[in-house]
Amino acid sequence: MNRLSVNQITVDGRSTRELVEGCVRHGIPAVGLWREPLAETGVEAVAKLVSDAGLRVSSLCRGGFFTRPGCLDDNLRALDEAAVLGAPCLVLVAGGLPPGSKDLPGARAKVMEMLAVLAPEAAARGVRLALEGLHPMFCADRAVVATLGQALAMAEPFPAAQVGVVIDAYHLWWDPRLAEDLPRAAGRIASYQVSDWILPLAADTLRSRGLPGDGHIDLTALTRDVARIGYAGDVEVEVMNAEVAARPLDDVLADLVRRHQELVLPVLA
Amino acid sequence: MNRLSVNQITVDGRSTRELVEGCVRHGIPAVGLWREPLAETGVEAVAKLVSDAGLRVSSLCRGGFFTRPGCLDDNLRALDEAAVLGAPCLVLVAGGLPPGSKDLPGARAKVMEMLAVLAPEAAARGVRLALEGLHPMFCADRAVVATLGQALAMAEPFPAAQVGVVIDAYHLWWDPRLAEDLPRAAGRIASYQVSDWILPLAADTLRSRGLPGDGHIDLTALTRDVARIGYAGDVEVEVMNAEVAARPLDDVLADLVRRHQELVLPVLA
Repeated sequence: MNRLSVNQITVDGRSTRELVEGCVRHGIPAVGLWREPLAETGVEAVAKLVSDAGLRVSSLCRGGFFTRPGCLDDNLRALDEAAVLGAPCLVLVAGGLPPGSKDLPGARAKVMEMLAVLAPEAAARGVRLALEGLHPMFCADRAVVATLGQALAMAEPFPAAQVGVVIDAYHLWWDPRLAEDLPRAAGRIASYQVSDWILPLAADTLRSRGLPGDGHIDLTALTRDVARIGYAGDVEVEVMNAEVAARPLDDVLADLVRRHQELVLPVLA
Repeated sequence: MNRLSVNQITVDGRSTRELVEGCVRHGIPAVGLWREPLAETGVEAVAKLVSDAGLRVSSLCRGGFFTRPGCLDDNLRALDEAAVLGAPCLVLVAGGLPPGSKDLPGARAKVMEMLAVLAPEAAARGVRLALEGLHPMFCADRAVVATLGQALAMAEPFPAAQVGVVIDAYHLWWDPRLAEDLPRAAGRIASYQVSDWILPLAADTLRSRGLPGDGHIDLTALTRDVARIGYAGDVEVEVMNAEVAARPLDDVLADLVRRHQELVLPVLA
Protein backbone atom coordinates (compact mmCIF):
# COMPACT_ATOMS: atom_id res chain seq x y z
CA MET A 1 0.00 0.00 0.00
CA ASN A 2 3.02 2.29 0.01
CA ARG A 3 1.85 4.34 -2.98
CA LEU A 4 -1.86 4.67 -2.20
CA SER A 5 -3.17 8.12 -1.39
CA VAL A 6 -6.70 9.20 -0.51
CA ASN A 7 -7.81 12.54 -1.79
CA GLN A 8 -9.75 14.35 0.91
CA ILE A 9 -12.78 15.05 -1.29
CA THR A 10 -13.43 11.29 -1.54
CA VAL A 11 -14.53 11.40 2.10
CA ASP A 12 -15.96 14.91 1.93
CA GLY A 13 -17.64 16.07 5.13
CA ARG A 14 -15.10 14.55 7.53
CA SER A 15 -12.50 16.62 9.35
CA THR A 16 -8.90 16.32 8.26
CA ARG A 17 -8.26 14.59 11.60
CA GLU A 18 -10.86 11.89 10.84
CA LEU A 19 -9.29 11.35 7.41
CA VAL A 20 -5.78 11.11 8.84
CA GLU A 21 -6.78 8.72 11.62
CA GLY A 22 -8.71 6.61 9.12
CA CYS A 23 -5.69 6.35 6.85
CA VAL A 24 -3.53 5.27 9.77
CA ARG A 25 -6.07 2.55 10.69
CA HIS A 26 -6.08 1.22 7.11
CA GLY A 27 -2.35 1.48 6.44
CA ILE A 28 -2.76 4.18 3.81
CA PRO A 29 0.40 6.29 3.76
CA ALA A 30 -0.64 9.50 1.98
CA VAL A 31 -3.43 12.03 1.62
CA GLY A 32 -4.32 14.61 -1.02
CA LEU A 33 -5.64 17.73 0.68
CA TRP A 34 -8.01 20.53 -0.30
CA ARG A 35 -7.62 24.15 0.66
CA GLU A 36 -11.12 24.72 2.08
CA PRO A 37 -10.73 22.31 5.03
CA LEU A 38 -7.22 23.72 5.56
CA ALA A 39 -8.72 27.12 6.11
CA GLU A 40 -10.92 25.69 8.89
CA THR A 41 -8.18 23.89 10.83
CA GLY A 42 -5.19 26.10 10.02
CA VAL A 43 -2.35 25.13 7.70
CA GLU A 44 0.30 24.69 10.40
CA ALA A 45 -2.02 22.52 12.49
CA VAL A 46 -2.83 20.29 9.51
CA ALA A 47 0.84 19.97 8.61
CA LYS A 48 1.58 18.84 12.17
CA LEU A 49 -1.41 16.48 12.24
CA VAL A 50 -0.33 14.72 9.05
CA SER A 51 3.30 14.59 9.99
CA ASP A 52 2.67 13.37 13.56
CA ALA A 53 0.58 10.54 12.10
CA GLY A 54 3.48 9.47 9.90
CA LEU A 55 1.61 10.29 6.70
CA ARG A 56 2.67 12.43 3.77
CA VAL A 57 0.75 14.86 1.57
CA SER A 58 0.62 13.77 -2.07
CA SER A 59 -0.96 16.95 -3.49
CA LEU A 60 -2.80 20.12 -2.61
CA CYS A 61 -6.01 20.96 -4.48
CA ARG A 62 -6.19 23.52 -5.86
CA GLY A 63 -4.88 26.62 -7.51
CA GLY A 64 -5.64 27.97 -10.94
CA PHE A 65 -8.88 29.56 -12.16
CA PHE A 66 -6.61 31.82 -14.14
CA THR A 67 -9.43 33.45 -16.06
CA ARG A 68 -10.78 35.04 -12.86
CA PRO A 69 -9.63 38.53 -11.96
CA GLY A 70 -7.38 38.67 -8.89
CA CYS A 71 -6.34 35.05 -9.15
CA LEU A 72 -2.64 35.76 -8.69
CA ASP A 73 -2.83 36.49 -4.95
CA ASP A 74 -4.93 33.42 -4.35
CA ASN A 75 -2.47 31.21 -6.21
CA LEU A 76 0.45 32.64 -4.25
CA ARG A 77 -1.39 31.85 -1.02
CA ALA A 78 -2.03 28.32 -2.30
CA LEU A 79 1.69 27.88 -3.01
CA ASP A 80 2.55 29.11 0.48
CA GLU A 81 0.15 26.57 1.94
CA ALA A 82 1.56 23.75 -0.19
CA ALA A 83 5.05 24.63 1.04
CA VAL A 84 4.00 24.51 4.70
CA LEU A 85 2.29 21.15 4.17
CA GLY A 86 5.25 19.70 2.33
CA ALA A 87 2.94 18.96 -0.59
CA PRO A 88 5.06 18.14 -3.63
CA CYS A 89 2.59 19.80 -5.99
CA LEU A 90 -0.26 22.25 -6.29
CA VAL A 91 -2.97 21.00 -8.64
CA LEU A 92 -4.04 23.72 -11.08
CA VAL A 93 -7.56 23.81 -12.50
CA ALA A 94 -7.16 26.23 -15.37
CA GLY A 95 -10.50 28.02 -15.16
CA GLY A 96 -13.26 28.34 -17.72
CA LEU A 97 -14.35 31.13 -20.03
CA PRO A 98 -14.76 34.52 -18.34
CA PRO A 99 -18.44 35.51 -17.94
CA GLY A 100 -19.96 36.38 -21.31
CA SER A 101 -16.82 35.48 -23.23
CA LYS A 102 -16.60 32.96 -26.08
CA ASP A 103 -12.89 33.57 -26.57
CA LEU A 104 -11.43 30.13 -25.94
CA PRO A 105 -8.01 30.92 -27.48
CA GLY A 106 -7.84 34.06 -25.32
CA ALA A 107 -8.65 32.11 -22.16
CA ARG A 108 -5.97 29.56 -23.03
CA ALA A 109 -3.41 32.32 -23.60
CA LYS A 110 -4.25 33.67 -20.14
CA VAL A 111 -3.40 30.28 -18.62
CA MET A 112 0.02 30.41 -20.29
CA GLU A 113 0.62 33.92 -18.99
CA MET A 114 -0.19 32.89 -15.44
CA LEU A 115 2.01 29.79 -15.61
CA ALA A 116 4.92 32.03 -16.57
CA VAL A 117 4.27 34.21 -13.52
CA LEU A 118 3.75 31.33 -11.11
CA ALA A 119 6.47 28.89 -12.19
CA PRO A 120 9.34 30.79 -10.51
CA GLU A 121 7.15 31.49 -7.46
CA ALA A 122 6.48 27.76 -7.14
CA ALA A 123 10.16 26.92 -7.59
CA ALA A 124 11.13 29.40 -4.89
CA ARG A 125 8.83 27.54 -2.47
CA GLY A 126 9.94 24.05 -3.48
CA VAL A 127 6.48 23.25 -4.88
CA ARG A 128 5.69 21.96 -8.36
CA LEU A 129 2.77 23.26 -10.37
CA ALA A 130 0.55 20.41 -11.59
CA LEU A 131 -1.53 21.49 -14.57
CA GLU A 132 -4.64 19.38 -14.93
CA GLY A 133 -6.58 18.73 -18.11
CA LEU A 134 -10.25 18.44 -17.12
CA HIS A 135 -12.94 16.49 -18.94
CA PRO A 136 -14.28 18.55 -21.86
CA MET A 137 -17.70 18.72 -20.22
CA PHE A 138 -16.07 21.25 -17.87
CA CYS A 139 -14.46 23.36 -20.61
CA ALA A 140 -16.87 26.31 -20.46
CA ASP A 141 -17.03 26.73 -16.71
CA ARG A 142 -13.99 25.10 -15.09
CA ALA A 143 -11.03 24.39 -17.30
CA VAL A 144 -10.14 25.45 -20.82
CA VAL A 145 -7.36 22.85 -20.57
CA ALA A 146 -8.97 19.60 -21.64
CA THR A 147 -6.43 17.02 -22.75
CA LEU A 148 -3.06 15.65 -21.71
CA GLY A 149 -1.53 16.82 -25.00
CA GLN A 150 -2.71 20.35 -24.36
CA ALA A 151 -1.52 20.35 -20.74
CA LEU A 152 1.86 19.05 -21.87
CA ALA A 153 2.16 21.68 -24.60
CA MET A 154 1.51 24.34 -21.96
CA ALA A 155 3.91 22.81 -19.45
CA GLU A 156 6.78 22.06 -21.80
CA PRO A 157 8.14 25.62 -22.06
CA PHE A 158 8.98 25.34 -18.34
CA PRO A 159 11.41 23.07 -16.50
CA ALA A 160 9.73 19.76 -15.63
CA ALA A 161 10.57 20.32 -11.97
CA GLN A 162 8.55 23.55 -12.00
CA VAL A 163 5.53 22.68 -14.14
CA GLY A 164 4.21 19.16 -14.26
CA VAL A 165 0.86 17.71 -15.30
CA VAL A 166 -1.87 15.70 -13.62
CA ILE A 167 -2.99 12.43 -15.13
CA ASP A 168 -6.55 12.07 -13.85
CA ALA A 169 -8.15 8.94 -15.26
CA TYR A 170 -11.67 10.35 -15.04
CA HIS A 171 -10.81 13.42 -17.09
CA LEU A 172 -8.57 11.81 -19.70
CA TRP A 173 -9.62 8.19 -20.25
CA TRP A 174 -11.67 8.84 -23.41
CA ASP A 175 -8.91 10.67 -25.30
CA PRO A 176 -7.97 8.88 -28.53
CA ARG A 177 -4.51 10.49 -28.34
CA LEU A 178 -3.81 9.49 -24.74
CA ALA A 179 -1.55 6.52 -25.51
CA GLU A 180 0.33 8.59 -28.07
CA ASP A 181 0.77 11.63 -25.79
CA LEU A 182 1.64 9.72 -22.63
CA PRO A 183 5.34 9.10 -23.38
CA ARG A 184 5.82 12.88 -23.64
CA ALA A 185 4.65 13.06 -20.03
CA ALA A 186 7.66 11.10 -18.79
CA GLY A 187 9.23 13.13 -16.00
CA ARG A 188 6.30 15.58 -16.00
CA ILE A 189 3.65 13.63 -14.09
CA ALA A 190 3.20 15.53 -10.85
CA SER A 191 0.12 13.60 -9.80
CA TYR A 192 -1.72 10.46 -10.90
CA GLN A 193 -5.36 10.36 -9.83
CA VAL A 194 -7.85 7.55 -10.25
CA SER A 195 -11.62 7.20 -10.08
CA ASP A 196 -14.13 5.78 -12.54
CA TRP A 197 -16.59 6.96 -15.20
CA ILE A 198 -20.06 5.85 -14.17
CA LEU A 199 -23.41 6.54 -15.81
CA PRO A 200 -25.82 8.20 -15.70
CA LEU A 201 -24.06 11.44 -14.85
CA ALA A 202 -25.23 12.91 -11.56
CA ALA A 203 -27.28 16.12 -11.69
CA ASP A 204 -24.18 17.73 -10.17
CA THR A 205 -21.75 16.58 -12.88
CA LEU A 206 -18.80 17.47 -10.65
CA ARG A 207 -19.81 14.72 -8.24
CA SER A 208 -20.48 12.03 -10.76
CA ARG A 209 -17.46 9.81 -10.25
CA GLY A 210 -17.35 6.19 -9.23
CA LEU A 211 -14.92 4.21 -7.09
CA PRO A 212 -12.09 2.67 -9.12
CA GLY A 213 -13.47 -0.46 -10.73
CA ASP A 214 -17.14 0.56 -10.67
CA GLY A 215 -17.22 2.10 -14.15
CA HIS A 216 -15.98 2.02 -17.72
CA ILE A 217 -12.31 2.98 -17.38
CA ASP A 218 -9.61 0.35 -17.82
CA LEU A 219 -7.60 1.59 -14.84
CA THR A 220 -5.24 -1.36 -14.93
CA ALA A 221 -4.21 -0.58 -18.51
CA LEU A 222 -3.81 3.13 -17.80
CA THR A 223 -1.81 2.50 -14.62
CA ARG A 224 0.46 0.13 -16.54
CA ASP A 225 1.07 2.80 -19.18
CA VAL A 226 1.77 5.44 -16.54
CA ALA A 227 4.16 3.12 -14.69
CA ARG A 228 5.93 2.22 -17.94
CA ILE A 229 7.03 5.78 -18.53
CA GLY A 230 8.66 5.81 -15.12
CA TYR A 231 6.06 7.33 -12.83
CA ALA A 232 6.97 6.32 -9.30
CA GLY A 233 4.74 8.63 -7.27
CA ASP A 234 1.49 8.14 -5.42
CA VAL A 235 -1.73 6.82 -6.88
CA GLU A 236 -4.33 9.16 -5.47
CA VAL A 237 -7.97 8.15 -5.34
CA GLU A 238 -10.12 11.19 -6.01
CA VAL A 239 -13.79 10.21 -6.11
CA MET A 240 -16.21 13.13 -6.05
CA ASN A 241 -19.53 11.49 -5.28
CA ALA A 242 -22.08 12.48 -2.65
CA GLU A 243 -23.19 8.86 -2.09
CA VAL A 244 -19.65 7.66 -1.53
CA ALA A 245 -18.95 10.53 0.85
CA ALA A 246 -22.10 9.63 2.82
CA ARG A 247 -20.95 6.05 3.49
CA PRO A 248 -19.13 5.10 6.72
CA LEU A 249 -15.52 6.25 6.52
CA ASP A 250 -13.99 2.87 7.30
CA ASP A 251 -16.09 1.13 4.67
CA VAL A 252 -14.92 3.55 2.00
CA LEU A 253 -11.27 3.32 3.02
CA ALA A 254 -11.44 -0.49 3.07
CA ASP A 255 -12.90 -0.40 -0.44
CA LEU A 256 -10.12 1.89 -1.63
CA VAL A 257 -7.46 -0.45 -0.27
CA ARG A 258 -9.12 -3.46 -1.90
CA ARG A 259 -9.52 -1.76 -5.28
CA HIS A 260 -5.92 -0.58 -5.14
CA GLN A 261 -4.81 -4.15 -4.53
CA GLU A 262 -6.96 -5.53 -7.34
CA LEU A 263 -6.61 -2.94 -10.09
CA VAL A 264 -3.49 -0.90 -9.52
CA LEU A 265 -0.92 -2.72 -7.42
CA PRO A 266 -0.35 -5.68 -9.80
CA VAL A 267 0.88 -3.35 -12.55
CA LEU A 268 2.83 -0.99 -10.30
CA ALA A 269 5.15 -3.73 -9.15
CA MET B 1 -31.22 31.37 -46.22
CA ASN B 2 -30.18 29.05 -49.02
CA ARG B 3 -27.84 26.99 -46.81
CA LEU B 4 -29.91 26.74 -43.64
CA SER B 5 -31.21 23.32 -42.67
CA VAL B 6 -33.33 22.32 -39.68
CA ASN B 7 -32.62 18.98 -38.14
CA GLN B 8 -35.85 17.25 -37.27
CA ILE B 9 -34.92 16.59 -33.66
CA THR B 10 -34.82 20.34 -33.00
CA VAL B 11 -38.63 20.31 -33.27
CA ASP B 12 -39.06 16.83 -31.84
CA GLY B 13 -42.66 15.75 -31.40
CA ARG B 14 -43.97 17.22 -34.69
CA SER B 15 -44.76 15.14 -37.72
CA THR B 16 -42.43 15.38 -40.68
CA ARG B 17 -45.28 17.15 -42.51
CA GLU B 18 -45.44 19.86 -39.84
CA LEU B 19 -41.69 20.34 -40.07
CA VAL B 20 -41.75 20.52 -43.87
CA GLU B 21 -44.65 22.98 -43.97
CA GLY B 22 -42.97 25.10 -41.30
CA CYS B 23 -39.76 25.26 -43.28
CA VAL B 24 -41.68 26.34 -46.37
CA ARG B 25 -43.39 29.13 -44.39
CA HIS B 26 -40.05 30.40 -43.11
CA GLY B 27 -38.08 30.06 -46.33
CA ILE B 28 -35.83 27.33 -44.97
CA PRO B 29 -34.69 25.14 -47.87
CA ALA B 30 -33.47 21.95 -46.20
CA VAL B 31 -34.18 19.46 -43.45
CA GLY B 32 -32.10 16.88 -41.63
CA LEU B 33 -34.23 13.79 -40.97
CA TRP B 34 -34.22 11.01 -38.39
CA ARG B 35 -35.04 7.41 -39.04
CA GLU B 36 -37.63 6.92 -36.29
CA PRO B 37 -40.21 9.37 -37.77
CA LEU B 38 -39.45 7.89 -41.21
CA ALA B 39 -40.60 4.55 -39.97
CA GLU B 40 -43.93 6.06 -38.93
CA THR B 41 -44.71 7.82 -42.21
CA GLY B 42 -42.92 5.56 -44.66
CA VAL B 43 -39.71 6.44 -46.48
CA GLU B 44 -41.26 6.86 -49.94
CA ALA B 45 -44.00 9.10 -48.55
CA VAL B 46 -41.48 11.29 -46.75
CA ALA B 47 -39.31 11.53 -49.85
CA LYS B 48 -42.35 12.72 -51.84
CA LEU B 49 -43.44 15.13 -49.10
CA VAL B 50 -40.03 16.82 -48.97
CA SER B 51 -39.59 16.90 -52.71
CA ASP B 52 -43.12 18.19 -53.42
CA ALA B 53 -42.47 21.04 -50.97
CA GLY B 54 -39.36 22.01 -52.92
CA LEU B 55 -37.05 21.19 -50.00
CA ARG B 56 -33.99 18.98 -49.91
CA VAL B 57 -32.67 16.56 -47.29
CA SER B 58 -29.31 17.59 -45.87
CA SER B 59 -28.62 14.42 -43.86
CA LEU B 60 -30.17 11.30 -42.40
CA CYS B 61 -29.62 10.49 -38.73
CA ARG B 62 -28.44 7.90 -38.03
CA GLY B 63 -26.49 4.77 -38.60
CA GLY B 64 -23.61 3.40 -36.63
CA PHE B 65 -23.65 1.85 -33.16
CA PHE B 66 -21.03 -0.47 -34.53
CA THR B 67 -20.30 -2.07 -31.19
CA ARG B 68 -23.78 -3.61 -31.06
CA PRO B 69 -24.28 -7.11 -32.41
CA GLY B 70 -26.32 -7.26 -35.61
CA CYS B 71 -25.64 -3.65 -36.54
CA LEU B 72 -24.75 -4.42 -40.15
CA ASP B 73 -28.32 -5.10 -41.31
CA ASP B 74 -29.58 -1.99 -39.62
CA ASN B 75 -26.91 0.15 -41.28
CA LEU B 76 -27.72 -1.31 -44.69
CA ARG B 77 -31.38 -0.43 -44.15
CA ALA B 78 -30.35 3.09 -43.14
CA LEU B 79 -28.32 3.44 -46.35
CA ASP B 80 -31.31 2.25 -48.39
CA GLU B 81 -33.48 4.87 -46.71
CA ALA B 82 -30.93 7.63 -47.29
CA ALA B 83 -30.84 6.71 -50.97
CA VAL B 84 -34.62 6.89 -51.31
CA LEU B 85 -34.68 10.27 -49.57
CA GLY B 86 -31.85 11.65 -51.70
CA ALA B 87 -29.96 12.39 -48.48
CA PRO B 88 -26.35 13.10 -49.39
CA CYS B 89 -25.08 11.47 -46.21
CA LEU B 90 -25.88 9.06 -43.41
CA VAL B 91 -24.64 10.33 -40.05
CA LEU B 92 -22.80 7.62 -38.13
CA VAL B 93 -22.75 7.57 -34.34
CA ALA B 94 -19.97 5.11 -33.65
CA GLY B 95 -21.42 3.40 -30.58
CA GLY B 96 -20.02 3.09 -27.07
CA LEU B 97 -18.34 0.29 -25.19
CA PRO B 98 -20.12 -3.06 -25.37
CA PRO B 99 -21.85 -3.99 -22.07
CA GLY B 100 -19.27 -4.85 -19.43
CA SER B 101 -16.33 -4.05 -21.67
CA LYS B 102 -13.53 -1.59 -20.88
CA ASP B 103 -11.74 -2.26 -24.15
CA LEU B 104 -11.73 1.14 -25.80
CA PRO B 105 -9.08 0.27 -28.41
CA GLY B 106 -11.10 -2.82 -29.32
CA ALA B 107 -14.31 -0.82 -29.74
CA ARG B 108 -12.48 1.65 -31.96
CA ALA B 109 -11.07 -1.16 -34.08
CA LYS B 110 -14.63 -2.46 -34.53
CA VAL B 111 -15.66 0.94 -35.94
CA MET B 112 -12.88 0.73 -38.51
CA GLU B 113 -13.94 -2.78 -39.49
CA MET B 114 -17.52 -1.69 -40.03
CA LEU B 115 -16.50 1.35 -42.06
CA ALA B 116 -14.62 -0.94 -44.40
CA VAL B 117 -17.72 -3.07 -44.87
CA LEU B 118 -20.11 -0.14 -45.29
CA ALA B 119 -18.07 2.23 -47.48
CA PRO B 120 -18.63 0.28 -50.73
CA GLU B 121 -22.28 -0.32 -49.79
CA ALA B 122 -22.76 3.42 -49.33
CA ALA B 123 -20.98 4.19 -52.59
CA ALA B 124 -23.21 1.71 -54.43
CA ARG B 125 -26.25 3.66 -53.19
CA GLY B 126 -24.84 7.12 -53.91
CA VAL B 127 -24.77 7.95 -50.19
CA ARG B 128 -21.79 9.22 -48.22
CA LEU B 129 -20.99 7.93 -44.75
CA ALA B 130 -20.59 10.81 -42.28
CA LEU B 131 -18.60 9.74 -39.25
CA GLU B 132 -19.34 11.91 -36.24
CA GLY B 133 -17.07 12.56 -33.31
CA LEU B 134 -19.31 12.92 -30.25
CA HIS B 135 -18.55 14.89 -27.12
CA PRO B 136 -16.36 12.83 -24.77
CA MET B 137 -19.13 12.74 -22.18
CA PHE B 138 -20.78 10.20 -24.52
CA CYS B 139 -17.68 8.04 -24.99
CA ALA B 140 -18.75 5.15 -22.76
CA ASP B 141 -22.32 4.77 -23.96
CA ARG B 142 -22.70 6.35 -27.41
CA ALA B 143 -19.54 6.99 -29.37
CA VAL B 144 -15.97 5.87 -28.91
CA VAL B 145 -15.13 8.41 -31.63
CA ALA B 146 -14.66 11.68 -29.77
CA THR B 147 -12.66 14.21 -31.79
CA LEU B 148 -12.38 15.51 -35.32
CA GLY B 149 -8.80 14.29 -35.53
CA GLN B 150 -9.88 10.79 -34.62
CA ALA B 151 -12.83 10.80 -37.05
CA LEU B 152 -10.51 12.02 -39.81
CA ALA B 153 -7.93 9.36 -39.06
CA MET B 154 -10.66 6.74 -39.36
CA ALA B 155 -12.12 8.26 -42.55
CA GLU B 156 -8.85 8.91 -44.38
CA PRO B 157 -8.19 5.32 -45.50
CA PHE B 158 -11.36 5.64 -47.63
CA PRO B 159 -12.15 7.88 -50.60
CA ALA B 160 -13.50 11.24 -49.39
CA ALA B 161 -16.63 10.71 -51.48
CA GLN B 162 -17.38 7.52 -49.55
CA VAL B 163 -16.48 8.42 -45.96
CA GLY B 164 -16.75 11.98 -44.73
CA VAL B 165 -16.98 13.46 -41.26
CA VAL B 166 -19.49 15.54 -39.36
CA ILE B 167 -18.43 18.82 -37.81
CA ASP B 168 -20.89 19.26 -34.96
CA ALA B 169 -20.11 22.39 -33.01
CA TYR B 170 -21.61 21.05 -29.78
CA HIS B 171 -19.46 17.96 -29.80
CA LEU B 172 -16.18 19.49 -30.96
CA TRP B 173 -15.98 23.12 -29.84
CA TRP B 174 -13.79 22.49 -26.77
CA ASP B 175 -11.06 20.56 -28.64
CA PRO B 176 -7.67 22.28 -28.37
CA ARG B 177 -6.63 20.62 -31.65
CA LEU B 178 -9.71 21.65 -33.61
CA ALA B 179 -8.13 24.57 -35.48
CA GLU B 180 -5.09 22.42 -36.28
CA ASP B 181 -7.12 19.41 -37.46
CA LEU B 182 -9.72 21.34 -39.45
CA PRO B 183 -7.67 21.88 -42.63
CA ARG B 184 -7.32 18.09 -42.94
CA ALA B 185 -11.12 17.97 -43.16
CA ALA B 186 -11.15 19.91 -46.43
CA GLY B 187 -13.22 17.87 -48.89
CA ARG B 188 -14.32 15.48 -46.12
CA ILE B 189 -17.02 17.50 -44.36
CA ALA B 190 -20.24 15.65 -45.08
CA SER B 191 -22.30 17.67 -42.60
CA TYR B 192 -21.87 20.82 -40.54
CA GLN B 193 -24.19 21.01 -37.54
CA VAL B 194 -24.64 23.86 -35.10
CA SER B 195 -26.15 24.29 -31.65
CA ASP B 196 -24.73 25.71 -28.45
CA TRP B 197 -23.17 24.56 -25.19
CA ILE B 198 -25.35 25.74 -22.31
CA LEU B 199 -25.06 25.09 -18.59
CA PRO B 200 -26.08 23.48 -16.36
CA LEU B 201 -26.29 20.23 -18.29
CA ALA B 202 -29.82 18.83 -18.37
CA ALA B 203 -30.49 15.66 -16.37
CA ASP B 204 -30.81 14.01 -19.79
CA THR B 205 -27.39 15.07 -21.08
CA LEU B 206 -28.41 14.14 -24.63
CA ARG B 207 -30.98 16.94 -24.60
CA SER B 208 -28.82 19.61 -23.08
CA ARG B 209 -28.15 21.79 -26.12
CA GLY B 210 -28.99 25.42 -26.62
CA LEU B 211 -30.07 27.39 -29.69
CA PRO B 212 -27.13 28.83 -31.62
CA GLY B 213 -26.05 31.98 -29.79
CA ASP B 214 -27.46 31.01 -26.39
CA GLY B 215 -24.28 29.44 -25.05
CA HIS B 216 -20.51 29.45 -24.89
CA ILE B 217 -19.51 28.43 -28.43
CA ASP B 218 -18.07 30.98 -30.81
CA LEU B 219 -20.15 29.76 -33.76
CA THR B 220 -19.15 32.66 -35.96
CA ALA B 221 -15.46 31.82 -35.62
CA LEU B 222 -16.06 28.11 -36.19
CA THR B 223 -18.27 28.74 -39.23
CA ARG B 224 -15.63 31.04 -40.67
CA ASP B 225 -12.99 28.32 -40.24
CA VAL B 226 -15.26 25.71 -41.81
CA ALA B 227 -16.07 28.02 -44.75
CA ARG B 228 -12.37 28.83 -45.24
CA ILE B 229 -11.51 25.23 -46.00
CA GLY B 230 -14.10 25.22 -48.76
CA TYR B 231 -17.19 23.77 -47.14
CA ALA B 232 -20.14 24.83 -49.28
CA GLY B 233 -22.88 22.59 -47.90
CA ASP B 234 -25.78 23.17 -45.54
CA VAL B 235 -25.56 24.52 -42.03
CA GLU B 236 -27.85 22.25 -40.10
CA VAL B 237 -29.27 23.32 -36.76
CA GLU B 238 -29.48 20.32 -34.46
CA VAL B 239 -30.69 21.36 -31.02
CA MET B 240 -31.67 18.50 -28.75
CA ASN B 241 -33.56 20.22 -25.96
CA ALA B 242 -36.95 19.31 -24.52
CA GLU B 243 -37.80 22.95 -23.72
CA VAL B 244 -37.02 24.11 -27.26
CA ALA B 245 -39.04 21.25 -28.73
CA ALA B 246 -41.99 22.23 -26.50
CA ARG B 247 -42.13 25.81 -27.86
CA PRO B 248 -44.47 26.76 -30.73
CA LEU B 249 -43.00 25.55 -34.01
CA ASP B 250 -43.11 28.91 -35.77
CA ASP B 251 -41.36 30.66 -32.88
CA VAL B 252 -38.51 28.17 -32.99
CA LEU B 253 -38.15 28.35 -36.77
CA ALA B 254 -38.19 32.16 -36.67
CA ASP B 255 -35.43 32.05 -34.04
CA LEU B 256 -33.37 29.68 -36.16
CA VAL B 257 -33.63 32.00 -39.17
CA ARG B 258 -32.65 35.02 -37.06
CA ARG B 259 -29.68 33.25 -35.45
CA HIS B 260 -28.54 32.01 -38.84
CA GLN B 261 -28.63 35.57 -40.16
CA GLU B 262 -26.76 36.95 -37.15
CA LEU B 263 -24.14 34.32 -36.46
CA VAL B 264 -23.57 32.23 -39.54
CA LEU B 265 -24.56 34.04 -42.72
CA PRO B 266 -22.08 36.94 -42.44
CA VAL B 267 -19.12 34.55 -42.54
CA LEU B 268 -20.56 32.16 -45.15
CA ALA B 269 -20.70 34.90 -47.80
